[in-house]
Amino acid sequence: MESEVKRIVEFIRSRLSEYGFKGAVLGVSGGIDSAVVLALLLKALDRKQIAVFILPERDSSPESTKDAKLVCKHFDVGYTLHPITGILKALGIYKLQPPAYFIPWKVKAKYALKRWEDYAKNKTPYETDVTGSDDQEFLNGLAYYRAKHRVRMVYLYKEAERRNYAVIGTTNRTEFLTGLYVKWGDDATDIEPLLHLYKTEIFEMAKFLKVPEKIIKKPATPDLIPGLTDEKILGMSYFDIDRLLSKIETGESLDNEDEEMVKKVKKLIEMGERRNRIRLISLERL
Amino acid sequence: MESEVKRIVEFIRSRLSEYGFKGAVLGVSGGIDSAVVLALLLKALDRKQIAVFILPERDSSPESTKDAKLVCKHFDVGYTLHPITGILKALGIYKLQPPAYFIPWKVKAKYALKRWEDYAKNKTPYETDVTGSDDQEFLNGLAYYRAKHRVRMVYLYKEAERRNYAVIGTTNRTEFLTGLYVKWGDDATDIEPLLHLYKTEIFEMAKFLKVPEKIIKKPATPDLIPGLTDEKILGMSYFDIDRLLSKIETGESLDNEDEEMVKKVKKLIEMGERRNRIRLISLERL
Repeated sequence: MESEVKRIVEFIRSRLSEYGFKGAVLGVSGGIDSAVVLALLLKALDRKQIAVFILPERDSSPESTKDAKLVCKHFDVGYTLHPITGILKALGIYKLQPPAYFIPWKVKAKYALKRWEDYAKNKTPYETDVTGSDDQEFLNGLAYYRAKHRVRMVYLYKEAERRNYAVIGTTNRTEFLTGLYVKWGDDATDIEPLLHLYKTEIFEMAKFLKVPEKIIKKPATPDLIPGLTDEKILGMSYFDIDRLLSKIETGESLDNEDEEMVKKVKKLIEMGERRNRIRLISLERL
Repeated sequence: MESEVKRIVEFIRSRLSEYGFKGAVLGVSGGIDSAVVLALLLKALDRKQIAVFILPERDSSPESTKDAKLVCKHFDVGYTLHPITGILKALGIYKLQPPAYFIPWKVKAKYALKRWEDYAKNKTPYETDVTGSDDQEFLNGLAYYRAKHRVRMVYLYKEAERRNYAVIGTTNRTEFLTGLYVKWGDDATDIEPLLHLYKTEIFEMAKFLKVPEKIIKKPATPDLIPGLTDEKILGMSYFDIDRLLSKIETGESLDNEDEEMVKKVKKLIEMGERRNRIRLISLERL
């Protein structure tokens, strides 16, 4: 693990110097990925070269902000807490998805989760998310949640560019392979130091880097739709997904695996390929 | 020209159907590229499958909005005019770059242009833009202008995703080769129908597609910094750039060309390659 950490630290340093970036901007969410990236940045750079932002919005879990602060305090890093609710409101995002401010987060979560699951007809909700839908409410939900990551991206770039810093991404290999990111949102960065690591490898690295146990143990969530966790979206545990992804990537035998689960993971890979392809076709010349 | 138009129309149709998009969202700026794309969309799709947005902000040239409306009226297409000033304000963009609302646009343009040109020391301002700077005012300017294209992108995606439409880009080959775009801004789209055409070819296509003469004749500008035109940024006319780009791309002799100009264009290509590379490294796994 130590040599892997060294390798990533070297990667961050060389990319920054190659492009003349003077430091790094990072959005800390309260989740494990950004906590690990923060710990890596602290090894790669001077503390004063790191600008950390916590960017909650109306429907973020209050726990996420608390955890994000906990991570920063734990690593003794200053941060700017800047709610992006005003920006999202100006964009018209909250018109797409009630309920509003005064409703407790737990009630919102129940409501939003029910809506998400209601769309599980022939396809899973995640498949519908990737491939599109005719349902107006579902489409509104997509526009609603994706704008959040995009606005965070715009905010982080503003802060990065006025410092000549790079924006550091937190996407991991599992998310990339299954398409669990927002196009032109959390994927729009300058450097991605975790893109080669499965989520389960990030759990290991988090322990090694002494990320607070609370952050490692809590269920991973994009915190874009109240109550929706990664594993609910993907329909399986990271433990299972990563084992199967790795076997499929290396061509190992799947004989001892549950057939239904293998089918599910293959579908997730198909979704990931589709999303990655759509992201790249905009670069293709006719 | 007719067969080229047909080829692009086919390209738009096939991309939309491949990914299940039901229509197209386009930002119309008042410039020639988006006017040409609009004309192409009208050939490829039903009028009711096209959602057009005009998205000016505090420092946009008032002429641009007028021209954008002119384009829509000329092609008899409905549009939504939605200033993004409130969103940019909520983002804190205008704090980065005075002057404010009440100052006439022409005065703003004079001020902004002077600032841009003042940075022409060893490098041209555009080189400084691409490679970075230590000057705080210049960096603020970068953060200020780039956020505008990014916010437009976020807005267009919100409108596209709630309709299950694709966002159509307007980047051309000259812009792509010289890096004249905003990373995760106007380059962040689903389909780029003009990416294979030099700007001078787009002038020809605009005539063929009967884009209003006023739009064809006016100087091209990203309209991100008051008064700054494309040719001022690039330091040469599109006529010269495209001829040289094409000769360099096809390996034609440069013997009859002005040496200084050739040097300039090679530098622009270097800037483009750098920008395109930074855009792609975020996809690379360690």
